[in-house]
Amino acid sequence: MLAEIITVGDEILIGQIVDTNSAFISKELNKIGVQVYQITSIQDDREHILAALDEAKERADLVLITGGLGPTKDDITKQCFCEFFDDTLVEDPQVVEHINYLFSHYFDKKPLPSNLLQAQVPSQAKILHNSNGTAPGMWMEKDDIVYVSMPGVPYEMKHLMREQVIPMVIEKFHRPHIYHKTLLTYGMGESAIEDRIGDWAHKLPKHIKLAYLPSLGRVRLRLSAKGPDESQLKKEVDAQMNVLHAMVEDIAVGYEHETSVTQRIGELLMEQHKTLSLAESCTGGALAQEITTHPGSSAYYRGSIIPYATELKTSILGVDAQLIAKHNVVSIPVAEAMAQRSNVVFKSDFAIATTGIAGPTKGDGDAEIGTVCIAIATPKGVVSEKFLFGKVRERVIQKTMNKAFEMLLREISKN
Amino acid sequence: MLAEIITVGDEILIGQIVDTNSAFISKELNKIGVQVYQITSIQDDREHILAALDEAKERADLVLITGGLGPTKDDITKQCFCEFFDDTLVEDPQVVEHINYLFSHYFDKKPLPSNLLQAQVPSQAKILHNSNGTAPGMWMEKDDIVYVSMPGVPYEMKHLMREQVIPMVIEKFHRPHIYHKTLLTYGMGESAIEDRIGDWAHKLPKHIKLAYLPSLGRVRLRLSAKGPDESQLKKEVDAQMNVLHAMVEDIAVGYEHETSVTQRIGELLMEQHKTLSLAESCTGGALAQEITTHPGSSAYYRGSIIPYATELKTSILGVDAQLIAKHNVVSIPVAEAMAQRSNVVFKSDFAIATTGIAGPTKGDGDAEIGTVCIAIATPKGVVSEKFLFGKVRERVIQKTMNKAFEMLLREISKN
Repeated sequence: MLAEIITVGDEILIGQIVDTNSAFISKELNKIGVQVYQITSIQDDREHILAALDEAKERADLVLITGGLGPTKDDITKQCFCEFFDDTLVEDPQVVEHINYLFSHYFDKKPLPSNLLQAQVPSQAKILHNSNGTAPGMWMEKDDIVYVSMPGVPYEMKHLMREQVIPMVIEKFHRPHIYHKTLLTYGMGESAIEDRIGDWAHKLPKHIKLAYLPSLGRVRLRLSAKGPDESQLKKEVDAQMNVLHAMVEDIAVGYEHETSVTQRIGELLMEQHKTLSLAESCTGGALAQEITTHPGSSAYYRGSIIPYATELKTSILGVDAQLIAKHNVVSIPVAEAMAQRSNVVFKSDFAIATTGIAGPTKGDGDAEIGTVCIAIATPKGVVSEKFLFGKVRERVIQKTMNKAFEMLLREISKN
Repeated sequence: MLAEIITVGDEILIGQIVDTNSAFISKELNKIGVQVYQITSIQDDREHILAALDEAKERADLVLITGGLGPTKDDITKQCFCEFFDDTLVEDPQVVEHINYLFSHYFDKKPLPSNLLQAQVPSQAKILHNSNGTAPGMWMEKDDIVYVSMPGVPYEMKHLMREQVIPMVIEKFHRPHIYHKTLLTYGMGESAIEDRIGDWAHKLPKHIKLAYLPSLGRVRLRLSAKGPDESQLKKEVDAQMNVLHAMVEDIAVGYEHETSVTQRIGELLMEQHKTLSLAESCTGGALAQEITTHPGSSAYYRGSIIPYATELKTSILGVDAQLIAKHNVVSIPVAEAMAQRSNVVFKSDFAIATTGIAGPTKGDGDAEIGTVCIAIATPKGVVSEKFLFGKVRERVIQKTMNKAFEMLLREISKN
């Protein structure tokens, strides 16, 4: 069984927004054994939409379309649906009621006639209730192919996918199982890894596929398998993964979980009733931002100081100015002092400190661009490491983030 | 003249990564008058790649492909290129030299035979030097259509696009001009806006298109025009934009510039020799992260305190505990005190403070979920506002960010 995703909107094709909907939809479908064959982004244009639907139906059993459902004239997905299905728009009384409710509850006013146009839906469509917005989702079938239209606004689409589309797909389609397992490695290039594991990879059974996913110092090795028997698949992939793990033991740093590294950090901190603070210099809030994307992070995250200007490391964090003068602001002793002071100032159990030169120009001190020191203060002491992360600012910040969370996770896991 | 983008990689189709390359490429092409007709994401699969190339050539004059150029066996774009162009791979001596240089300079070792496979390129390809990696870009032509293959690693691709592909496209193709102008509005829904401006929009000349782009409390109104004469286009769009602006004067908050709001904040602060600090509670580092993505931000950004736990607003920032007890931690007086204390602690001229409940559960205090207070402390005083931003955590944080930077920009502009 194959699916395709079509995202509609000129704003995607002129690069005004990044299409994040497709990755979300693909991930959700993958979890229930539905493979996405292709993702296509097209214009708000009648002929283009109709052509894309025509092409997709030749390849897929399930076609998911996002976007083009707004109340304004540039949004025409619904009209195209009618043309494609030879259908007409009718008013859905439940959607009318929902729109009236949203306006009276949130804006304390009546909807405009154009808002109520959102309740006009193709007569054959099964309506998917959109609790977060005025445009409903629509499920239509033709020649055994299912077409689902959803709003392009990410949080409306996500809710519709999770609450309605996924359960309906599970009920409608007979699906194989898909099982992925991803091993994280650090410190060796993909060519060197393939040199070492190529013979084994070459002999993998046909239904198990290996992929190399290099990114910023890491290479993720993903095994993917598809088949009718879930427990059998899992057994086979796990067995192959054990062989792989043994071959790359020296560079393996763990498996990629459904939950992200920062989610696991949060879970472990909560289990251990411990707290975290951050003293981020060169990462400038990137670590904090990642930690606080998780709901409930206030249970373990105490806060951060971002002493971007050097003297603030002393005035706010209380790092000894002489230590900075002696060792340079980008140094192991300063990183360690920052982490330890952060635990003191925030009364936390664990702290990450980062200090470095993200570039493209040199800051205070004379460290080479790309130099970063990371320290983790724990209830038992402090660990630290110095890195050289290259000359591209966004990469330096991202690599520092990856490494810092990896180091923290290791320390918390030891606890 | 039309372009298409094909991104190759199973990791996109299983949702393991978000395809950000397409938006970057679209934006760069748009700047030079090249319209992107479609974006297609496909599998690392021979038949799929060949089919996608076949389909794209029916619609576009320029086809840009990213991904599938790694040295490992799962990457097959180059082999597919050879099949598509009826060509064979040959070794390029300059690429060999570059790979040898990268390995000796950065890793102090010799490349493996598999690394040197990166120097194998189709014999008809014009090689695009990739200074950031081992896989070169390739430019090929067939039946008057240009095909460009680039690595999928974003920073390698970006460099190739800017340094090589864009100049070559400019030289090769006769292009019309494309001109966009986007007005930001705040506080009115897209339906209500259309009700007001619909008659005017309906009468726009054919070559000028209006789009409504709603997102998190804002609606962006974009006028786009395409034509042979740049100054004429600009004149027409600017004139129409003036009409539009007058109609929505009460909700307009400015134009969207090529530079982002935070870039403009940085430029103005540098012009005025002023500095910025942040006291972020509910945004948890999101503001800092946005500010520090800009190279050179250390010239005006002093740092941040993220007092996520309530008592830290007192112990680190020095906000009066009685003020918090009296007014609630999410309140205008507390937000204002946080901003003013931030200027004191960081010795900065401007400060943003945020305090709120991002949800999904209530934190300290009894404010409704989605309540946010934002304050801007300036050399002349402090301004603040209270908002209700809904119940979805990521939206609350994003809306707070948008609003906070907008408020700050307004204050700095007054200065």
